[in-house]
Amino acid sequence: MEIEDIKNLLETKKFNVLRKELDGVNAVDIPALLEDLDKESVIKVFRILSKEKAGEAFSYMEPYMKEKLIQDLTDTELKNVIDELFMDDTVDLIEEMPANVVKKILKVVNAKDRKIINELLKYPEYSAGSIMTTEFVDLEETMTVEQALQRIRDIGIDSETIYNCYVLDKNRILIGIVNIKEILISKKEKLIKDLMATNIISVNTMEDQEEVTKLFDKYDYFALPVVDTENRLVGIVTMDDAINVIQDEISEDFEKMAAITPTEDGYFKTSVFRHAGNRIIWLLVLMLSAAITGEIITHYEEAFAAIPLLVAFIPMIMGTGGNCGSQSSTLIIRGLATDEIELKDIFKALWKEVRVSLIVGAVLAVVNGIRIMIQYQDLQLAIVIGLTLMATVTVAKALGCLLPLLAKRLNLDPAIMAAPLITTLVDIFSILIYFQIATTIMGI
Amino acid sequence: MEIEDIKNLLETKKFNVLRKELDGVNAVDIPALLEDLDKESVIKVFRILSKEKAGEAFSYMEPYMKEKLIQDLTDTELKNVIDELFMDDTVDLIEEMPANVVKKILKVVNAKDRKIINELLKYPEYSAGSIMTTEFVDLEETMTVEQALQRIRDIGIDSETIYNCYVLDKNRILIGIVNIKEILISKKEKLIKDLMATNIISVNTMEDQEEVTKLFDKYDYFALPVVDTENRLVGIVTMDDAINVIQDEISEDFEKMAAITPTEDGYFKTSVFRHAGNRIIWLLVLMLSAAITGEIITHYEEAFAAIPLLVAFIPMIMGTGGNCGSQSSTLIIRGLATDEIELKDIFKALWKEVRVSLIVGAVLAVVNGIRIMIQYQDLQLAIVIGLTLMATVTVAKALGCLLPLLAKRLNLDPAIMAAPLITTLVDIFSILIYFQIATTIMGI
Repeated sequence: MEIEDIKNLLETKKFNVLRKELDGVNAVDIPALLEDLDKESVIKVFRILSKEKAGEAFSYMEPYMKEKLIQDLTDTELKNVIDELFMDDTVDLIEEMPANVVKKILKVVNAKDRKIINELLKYPEYSAGSIMTTEFVDLEETMTVEQALQRIRDIGIDSETIYNCYVLDKNRILIGIVNIKEILISKKEKLIKDLMATNIISVNTMEDQEEVTKLFDKYDYFALPVVDTENRLVGIVTMDDAINVIQDEISEDFEKMAAITPTEDGYFKTSVFRHAGNRIIWLLVLMLSAAITGEIITHYEEAFAAIPLLVAFIPMIMGTGGNCGSQSSTLIIRGLATDEIELKDIFKALWKEVRVSLIVGAVLAVVNGIRIMIQYQDLQLAIVIGLTLMATVTVAKALGCLLPLLAKRLNLDPAIMAAPLITTLVDIFSILIYFQIATTIMGI
Repeated sequence: MEIEDIKNLLETKKFNVLRKELDGVNAVDIPALLEDLDKESVIKVFRILSKEKAGEAFSYMEPYMKEKLIQDLTDTELKNVIDELFMDDTVDLIEEMPANVVKKILKVVNAKDRKIINELLKYPEYSAGSIMTTEFVDLEETMTVEQALQRIRDIGIDSETIYNCYVLDKNRILIGIVNIKEILISKKEKLIKDLMATNIISVNTMEDQEEVTKLFDKYDYFALPVVDTENRLVGIVTMDDAINVIQDEISEDFEKMAAITPTEDGYFKTSVFRHAGNRIIWLLVLMLSAAITGEIITHYEEAFAAIPLLVAFIPMIMGTGGNCGSQSSTLIIRGLATDEIELKDIFKALWKEVRVSLIVGAVLAVVNGIRIMIQYQDLQLAIVIGLTLMATVTVAKALGCLLPLLAKRLNLDPAIMAAPLITTLVDIFSILIYFQIATTIMGI
């Protein structure tokens, strides 16, 4: 459906046709359509949507659009929208709206839901509790398949997923999980007790959301149960929420690894000043660190006054060192993020990097030696650059391997030990190594 | 369950106890347990596992372990394992095993499955067809809810997911989707026709797998239908497979962005020689490109012979340029990957980067100017470095923004235009700018 069609139908007041047309549009795609309409038309079109579609479309909108809509809707209309939202989406909404909008939302929420919302709001950001939903199917182990199916029918319509059903004891402690497939293919009289799996993978409400996504990655579950410290089931995290968390965390890692302070807003949504602010802190730190490398160079003024050609190799040596360091640090950071590399592997990883360095360093030294012999016919220079490359590559790869692991050990995010910082540090070492080798061999 | 317990139970031949203990272990965790056993014990323990658990545990094993096991299993045992696997897992297995092992596998597969396998093997790598499974629940629109439930019971046991059921017409063309929740909560007599959603999001078999994962990200589906060019349903991609693809693609992006040839094997599984090989190509390219920067420097020998201090600022200018360029390129590459930035946004993005550059460049120039005035009391030098920083930052951010978009335009992976390549290119420009400004202002 095109935006022009909507405008035409609105103008000609063919609201029934419009509603029918919009019924065929996926709820996810409706916010993009609304974005191209003027303010008055937005609220008109939103009111035309069926109750269900309006609620679903609302959940996919950007915060600024939600805010505008809430201010335009009547209390009854708002109540309809909020009723359609899953509890975790309502909580997210409350967290991102300004106080006056929150007030309007809470006014239309009933007392029972308000209590649940307040509970959910207490979980720290990025915890399992903060991304879980409280709507799930709970069964008792003494139920038969028939009773279970009836229970699913009774409460299932409000559950974010009915694929997994959770078996609780009298104290609401999670004792088993049974999936809908098993219930469906079993005989009516069979007991849930005999169907449920008891080797349960669950997470605590306070668990970091990144750890939760790792479990989704490892076990192919559609949902993970979230329990409190007494092992009582309080909610579930569904896989679609996990995918969102994975994408957010990955974007954050990419930004951190490029020396940018991470933001949750998108590229175009972030203002020029925010962009500048997010990038400048690390640039300043790295710029002033690079001054150290500059200081070292001034100490060797005599060396390059005697042989000016030495200066010409500075970019190549610094560049190669930086690239080698960031190759290693990227592999280690990614390995740590996917749990493939652990802290205890530190010596195993270092030993691997050292051997890789020897091969890589030797090849680079030889190729570069050939180039220097062809261009300058200067064996001494070829040896100096070759040895410098070997040493620089080894130091760079060792630092690239060790620093992310060190960060992990200190409970910092390994992603900060990425290309920019590693490169700046490697620069210092490579310039030191370079001039030390040059002055020694060339006798300057 | 600890590895020592398994060894003890094996030694004391308490096989029944062992089987019961292993039943309580999650299938995902069994490969790690087997890895610590000697070859003979591995096959013993594997034989003790229940048929279902053995098949599931097998699907989580690393290729080398699968290969060893297949060689040790009898044909009947192998058939049991293969029967437990989903069709897409069997195809993946065939793709990663050597020819003699594939022969052994195909021998135990029945004729019907062999035909499906051959069809699946024809889809190109990284296509939707290559990651889909052919097992799903298909319904007819004339069925009642009761008939649909019976159909799910009949075939559901073999379907990777029964959450979504697919409504096909006589020609197997996909005409609707109905989820199990809706079937369960509806009256027995209701027709599937009246329950199914007809605004279907589907992908073609040849669609790139990365595009498929973007759909999962956008629409919160548990499975996406895969259709052929005639819109006939041939398979489904489930969300757990999508998560695996997302993680693989992300790892690939990280590696490409650090100038590493991507591999599918993990860090420790890749040999030292493979590691060296994967890293050396880009290092050589970048090293030889850095020689250009070196050549430029030799042209300005007179300048730094006159004022040696100029050399000391090379690392800082190159470093800052590189960091600015990789900040921009990372944001653009990530934006392209998540579809937040599109090709048509090129001028919008460039304009944003230019404005950010002006702010960032000015701040860096001022901070650095203050440092130079304190350290050297040389206003001319402060102006030269300040202007160079402003110009370098702008060029770096413009290149970092444009090159990934150019790569996308040329149907190349934008990820190759990341930090290492951008940094090397920016180096060339920044050195040129630096010495040009220095010689002009200082009159050398």
